[in-house]
Parts: sequence; structure tokens; C-alpha cells
Amino acid sequence: MAKEAITPRAEDPARWYTDVVLGAELADYSPVKGCMVIRPHGYALWELLRDELDRRIRATGHRNAYFPLFIPQSFLAREAEHVEGFAKECAIVTHTRLRAVKDGDGVRVEPDPESRLEEPLVVRPTSETIMYSMFAKWIQSYRDLPLLLNQWANIVRWEMRTRLFLRTTEFLWQEGHTAHATSQEAEEEVRRMLGVYREVAEEVMALPVLVGRKTEAQKFAGALHTYCLETMTLDRKALQAGTSHHLGQNFARAFGVKFQDAAGQEQLVWQTSWGVSTRLVGALVMGHSDDDGLVLPPRLAPVQVAVVPIWKGDAERTRICEAAHAAGRELREAGLRVEVDDRDALRPGFKYHEWELKGVPVRLELGPRDLEKGQVVAVRRDDARKLPIPRPALARGVRELLDDIQGALYRRALAFRQDHTRSIDGWDEFAAFHDDPGGFARSPFCGGRACEEAIQEATRATVRVIEFDRPEEPGRCVRCGGAAEGRVVFARAY
Amino acid sequence: MAKEAITPRAEDPARWYTDVVLGAELADYSPVKGCMVIRPHGYALWELLRDELDRRIRATGHRNAYFPLFIPQSFLAREAEHVEGFAKECAIVTHTRLRAVKDGDGVRVEPDPESRLEEPLVVRPTSETIMYSMFAKWIQSYRDLPLLLNQWANIVRWEMRTRLFLRTTEFLWQEGHTAHATSQEAEEEVRRMLGVYREVAEEVMALPVLVGRKTEAQKFAGALHTYCLETMTLDRKALQAGTSHHLGQNFARAFGVKFQDAAGQEQLVWQTSWGVSTRLVGALVMGHSDDDGLVLPPRLAPVQVAVVPIWKGDAERTRICEAAHAAGRELREAGLRVEVDDRDALRPGFKYHEWELKGVPVRLELGPRDLEKGQVVAVRRDDARKLPIPRPALARGVRELLDDIQGALYRRALAFRQDHTRSIDGWDEFAAFHDDPGGFARSPFCGGRACEEAIQEATRATVRVIEFDRPEEPGRCVRCGGAAEGRVVFARAY
Repeated sequence: MAKEAITPRAEDPARWYTDVVLGAELADYSPVKGCMVIRPHGYALWELLRDELDRRIRATGHRNAYFPLFIPQSFLAREAEHVEGFAKECAIVTHTRLRAVKDGDGVRVEPDPESRLEEPLVVRPTSETIMYSMFAKWIQSYRDLPLLLNQWANIVRWEMRTRLFLRTTEFLWQEGHTAHATSQEAEEEVRRMLGVYREVAEEVMALPVLVGRKTEAQKFAGALHTYCLETMTLDRKALQAGTSHHLGQNFARAFGVKFQDAAGQEQLVWQTSWGVSTRLVGALVMGHSDDDGLVLPPRLAPVQVAVVPIWKGDAERTRICEAAHAAGRELREAGLRVEVDDRDALRPGFKYHEWELKGVPVRLELGPRDLEKGQVVAVRRDDARKLPIPRPALARGVRELLDDIQGALYRRALAFRQDHTRSIDGWDEFAAFHDDPGGFARSPFCGGRACEEAIQEATRATVRVIEFDRPEEPGRCVRCGGAAEGRVVFARAY
Repeated sequence: MAKEAITPRAEDPARWYTDVVLGAELADYSPVKGCMVIRPHGYALWELLRDELDRRIRATGHRNAYFPLFIPQSFLAREAEHVEGFAKECAIVTHTRLRAVKDGDGVRVEPDPESRLEEPLVVRPTSETIMYSMFAKWIQSYRDLPLLLNQWANIVRWEMRTRLFLRTTEFLWQEGHTAHATSQEAEEEVRRMLGVYREVAEEVMALPVLVGRKTEAQKFAGALHTYCLETMTLDRKALQAGTSHHLGQNFARAFGVKFQDAAGQEQLVWQTSWGVSTRLVGALVMGHSDDDGLVLPPRLAPVQVAVVPIWKGDAERTRICEAAHAAGRELREAGLRVEVDDRDALRPGFKYHEWELKGVPVRLELGPRDLEKGQVVAVRRDDARKLPIPRPALARGVRELLDDIQGALYRRALAFRQDHTRSIDGWDEFAAFHDDPGGFARSPFCGGRACEEAIQEATRATVRVIEFDRPEEPGRCVRCGGAAEGRVVFARAY
């Protein structure tokens, strides 16, 4: 793909995003409406992210398990808010056989009416109901608590308007599900896992996040309350990067998840669920990339270093490629993910563009003059700066450079968010702010559902998060003038 | 679960199997017909197996990717044999919304007729069709070949008679899919991946396998030919542990997967697919376990060593538990997967049984007398032998023991298979052999489809594999007396 194929962000952020994703070969459109194909480069990125999350999920005492893809439709209906939240966007299996039928000269297939299921099955839009029907069987006594499970799985929500990674009919995620003896333990769990997500977002993805609570209107269908992480995209919208729900005893009641406490009394458990998905790949793209393509934080880059040898003629080629492969081996032995691009028919400039499109953090150029000087020239993806590294210090030099890029991406994203976050008290300023290009507005809010809807209608902005660390600051709601306990963060959202 | 809960294998192999799987907490039945829940111990086992496979699949040049769960029904129908093979066992999505309807005093939900899909979607029973529709887009030139992809995914086949791990409506697997410029390259690929599976089966799972070709009747729907691995279960049946298909150009033709060769000519690609699934967990259980529960080869045991401290009274407890945890730490540092079972309310004997049920290869007992003697007592799961290990040599001693168990399990399984494999030429002996308890019969076979069916009807045995290394041995078919080129392996199969 040529560099010219990427639409500048300033011109059209939506097309820019799609161009970056397709150009980096992270994903492609599939013949199934709303479903995407995750290509090897994108899947490798997801695997690295998954491993970072998985390690932390295990370290906090959770164990992985796997529950069925299908949920009897009656299960979804047992928790009233829950079914309300998911009924309008699910894939429903009704038949189990295809039959051939004549169609003009040919033959086509259709569902065999005789294979109709007695009870239709819903493809999981989330797994609370199917999991907790099992929890009810496994949990007897307080000795079985806490039960701390996690699942890596595919999920289906029938979305009308889809976008690669950000909103797709099928996506991949992890969903943690736990049961506890007390509400307080459940609350600690919900906050602990939000902390894990925050650590991964900030330290691994280099994306600063705001953390806090959702309003009633935005919380998970069936939860007591929902905590979330919100990051700012480069087009100044909010992107929800993860949620953690205190489910209270709502599902425990619906599915009879009970335990005998130490005193011999039967009680309902307290539950939590929390998840992040392939949406995070979209957040990464939206948080760091530029008009040359993808920009990846080194800790998640499937290829951290691309070595590009530069030669003229066959004799030079052999010598330079050998040196390039030796450098590649040395970096690999130092634990880095490296590609040596010795493809024959392509010019160095073409290769540079390709590695830029793919977001490789460091490119190493190695030509005859570098060989003579005993150096390699490193080029940073984030700011295009060039830096010669003496050959004997190669591994250390590249490592330091990668660390520096990781930090620089975070600081750049943080500065960007700060530049586009404003405290706004008056309605006119608020409405104007959310007109293009917008950002995060910290504004006093009365907390009313109707008021939130009115704000959304007028500005397309919603309450993204009620920050944990907001100061108490009595004021007047930016919209209705009613009493506000403090500010909340408003933004347009993905 | 008490030891008594396991039905002896000699009494009822089917109940024995289920008791072992449930007793080890590998899996549980779910409320969805034919679908199981993979519990943490079973999922950890699958993850270890997955990692062993994944490493080898990458090392042979393949990259992981992810394709949609849903396949338009018309795609399945494009390859005639393929749809024939899968039409009768698939889950079909026809609607995308639930609606609430009054039902007496309550409310129930049903698929909203207005949300009916124009084209129903099949939940993937395998991914050839959806993947190759993308291959057609990505492959242009011989430079794009070979294309070597692999996918880890869930699969749905609507099975009538299901058994935990061995045959479930939903299962987890990997499916490799490749495209090549020539038939010979595809053939090499098919054999290479069969070799990878064989290595994992024999070296990691400690299961000896027969490898070779399937008959026409047993090959994959849409393939030119199918290669397979077959292992023998402890009830002397055959269990197919993996398949590798040469797809020829059948799917390439159906989906238009073409490339321009070096001479500028347009050609169809040659394709392969190959897969193994969570069925392998069933093969493991069926291949090594006993009447005390699961027996796991050390290389796949989620817990390789269980340390059980034995104490009386509080003072002893502190001292012994400290020593047990110190031993556990040392073994973990040596790279082993270890649990220290210091649970308070339970007797050592109860703990022994539990770790036996779970298939832990080595149990370490540590009591006051052992502490005095400066030793730990190791107990092997495979043969119950006890062996004191001097404390200073603990890590080395346990490691050697684990290696020894790994080898012993393989040799035991191989001897078992050899004991129950017979060369049989005459029909009466053949028919009697396949009556309980049976085994593998190497018998001359004419290769006829009708003859294979007649044999199955009479004995319930089918041709499991035409071994690669069978000697040429002209003879008379065990059933019809027609000309046979050599022997094939007949058995009843899971």
C-alpha cells in the first residue's frame, strides 16, 4: 500500500482511522456484515495485549475457564434490566440443519424447518447468565468463596453501525466473573480490576485514562454500579477502554447463587464482572497514530525493530545483509522482536514506508558507510528523529530508545488530553465546545437522567465518567441550573 | 469428591470416563444441550497443550489470525461435498432481536419476527469457506504464496450424542489453512503438520499414535485426501487425535483463489487445512487414567507436584508448613508447577485422594520424621511407588522423577496398544475380535466403500487408518475376498 493511501486526519478522522487500520494490515472487512477479519499483524498485537492482561489477571488470583457460546433465551430474561440491555442486539440460533432446495437450474440451501429448536439460543452477548447458572451449582459454603474466574472468548452484539475494532458485531474479549461473601469484598474486587486495567492502559498501551464511575444511564444492564476507564482519541472524543461492574445480588437472586455462611445461614453471594476487548486495539490506533500510519508503543509492537539493509550490487548485498542479520540476531538474543527486511526487489524507501504504516517503533538503516563507521542508524517512528548507534552498543542503545519512545508516547498523549480538557460552567460555552473539535469538558451536573438526555440531544456529548478523585465542589448544573455536587466529564464518545 | 465415586473401568468404561472427568473437575455439564463448561483445571490443561502446539505452528512459519464466527449459508453450499458433510449438524442464526411477550402472569421472550435475517448465518463448523473468500482477495501473485495461517477458535457442530471433551456441540480447536503454488508443496505441508501433531501426541501427551491416510469414506468433506493420527483408548477403541487435509483445488475453484505465476499465467492455488481440538483432552484421559482418577503426563499437568505437609498440633504445624512452603518455592524456582496443600481442616489422606483424582504426577509428603531425616517422600501417581528424596537434592530428584513418569506413561500406553493389536486375515476371527473388548485389527482390505460399510454394519469397526509405513502385502479382503494391496487398521472408534 502506498503512503498516499492514508487520508490526512485533519481532513477526515473517520477515513484516516480506517486507512490506518487497513494500511497496517491489522484487519480487513469480511463478507459478513459487521464482522471483521483480524489479520496476523493485528492478531499478534492482540496476543501481546492479552498476555499482559492475562498475567495480571492470574497474579490477582483468578483462574481461566470456558463456558458455552450459547445461552438459552429464557436465561437472558431472568434479570429484567439485563435482557432490556441486550435483547435488541443479539444473534439468535433457531435451527440446526440446512436442507437443499431447487432454485431454478441450481440448488440452494435453507434452514430445515424440521430442525427448529424448542428453545432458541442466543449467541453470548456477555456471559453473566450462563456462568451464574453454574456458580449456583458449584457454590455451597463460604469455603467456596471467593470464586474468581476469567474467560477469554468471542462475543456477539448485533450492532447497526460498525467500525473496525471499535464496534463490531463479533469481538474478542476477556470477562472476569467473581462471587464474594460480602458487598465490601465485591467492591474491593471491582476496584482492584479497574486498577489492573489502568496499569495496562497507561504502562503498556501508553494511553492515559480517566477513571471513575458511570451515571445510572450509562451503567451495565443489571449492575449496581459500573466503573470505567476513558481515554481521549486524537479527534478529541472519549473512548471507553474497559469497565468493571459491581453486580450486587441481582444475578445471585435471579440464578439462586447462595452459600451457607460460617454461622450456618443461607445467603446470596455478591458478584462482580469486568472486561476489556479487541476495542483496545482501536483505542491504540486512535491514541497514537499519524498521517504516515500506525504508531505503536514498543511494549505492544509485534515488530519492535525493523532492520533495513541498504546496498548496491551483489557484492555489497552479501556483505550488508550478513551484517544486518547479525544485528538482528543480537537484538533477538537481547529479547527484542525483530524483522530483517532483506527483500530483493524493493527499494529501501518503499520498505521504510511499509514499516511506518505498520507502526514499527524503531527502524535501523544499515548501509556501506554505516558499516565502515561501525554504526547503525536508528530512526524513531514517533518523531522521525535519526540517531546513529555505535555497533558495539547496539542492543543497549535500541533498548533505551524503545523505553524512551514508550515514555514519550504516554507524555504526548497526556499533554494532548490536557490541552483539550476544559472546566466549563456556562451552557453557551459548553455547547460551543462540543461543536467540532470538542474534547473533555469538566462541568457541574445535577445527576438527573432527563437532564443527561437533554444534554446529549443538544450537543451529542454524554457523561463519560464521574472521576474518583474529583473535588467536592457544590455548584449549578451546566444545563438545568439544579444543584450539583461536583463536576463530571462530558464528551462525545466512540 | 470421594474416591468411591469413580466407577471401575472394568465395570463400565463410559461411566468410568465421565467419573474421571467430573472427579478431576476438568469439565461439567452445562444447561445447554451438548455444550460443556471447561473448568479451571481442564482449561489450564488445554492452555498448556495449546502453547505446545502454538509454539510448533509458529516455528513452521505460520501466523495466527482470526476470522468471523458466522458464515453466510450460501458460502457453505459452494463446495458440494463440503456442504453435504456439514449441513446436518450446524447451528443457524436467523434473527437478531428478542421481543417480550405476555405469558400468563409473566413475560417471556422470543425472536422478533421483524428481525429475521435476509440470509441466515451458520455458526462455523470449520472455516474453509469464510477464510478462502478472503484468500481470494489477498492473493494476487506467486509472491503472496505460500500463505500460512492458523486460527484458535470455537467451533459448533450440532451433535446428537455428545460426551465431555470427546464429542461436544461446541469445542475449541486450532485450524491451519494454507495456500500454495503447487500440489507438491501442499502435500509437503500436509505431512509436515501431521508430523507436528505426532510429535505433540507422543512427546508431550505420551500417547503413541498410528499415522497414515483415511479411506474415501472417512476423509474430510471437500478434501482430496485426509491424513490422521489414531490413538488407542484404554477400552481398546480408536480415537482420532488430529487430521491434516490436502484440499487440492476444490475450494480454490469454488472461491476463485487464484494467482499469477512467474510466467504471468493465472492459476488456482493448492490448499491444505489441519486441526486438533479439545478432544485431545479426552484422548489424554482415555489413554492414561485409572480407577483412582486422572493420570496426567508431567509435561501437561497444570500441577506437576503437590506438596502435602503432615502435622499434629499447632507447634508442629508451623514448623512443617514452613518446610513445605520452602520446598514448594525451591521447586517453583526450578521451573516446576507446584501446589502446597496446607489446608487446615482436611486430613492428609483426603488430600492424597484429591490430588490423585486431579492426576498430579508427583505428590510430596513431608512429616516430622521426614524433616528429621532431611528428606521428602515422593509418591508417583502412575504406579503409586514411594521414594524418599534427600532434601538437598529435591529439585533434581523431582525433575528426574517427572521425566521418568513421562517416559513410563508413553511406554505403558505403547505396550497396551501392542498387546491389543492383531493381524487378522479371516472374517470369523475378525468379527469375534471386534466383539468386546476388541482392539486394532490389521487386516487386508479391498478399499471398496460398500465393503467398508458392510464391515461397519456387521462389527461396528471402521477403517481408522491406512498406515504410511505398511508393507506392500497383496492379499484377500477380510470381508469380501477381493484383491487387497495391503493391510489397514480396523477398530471401533470414538
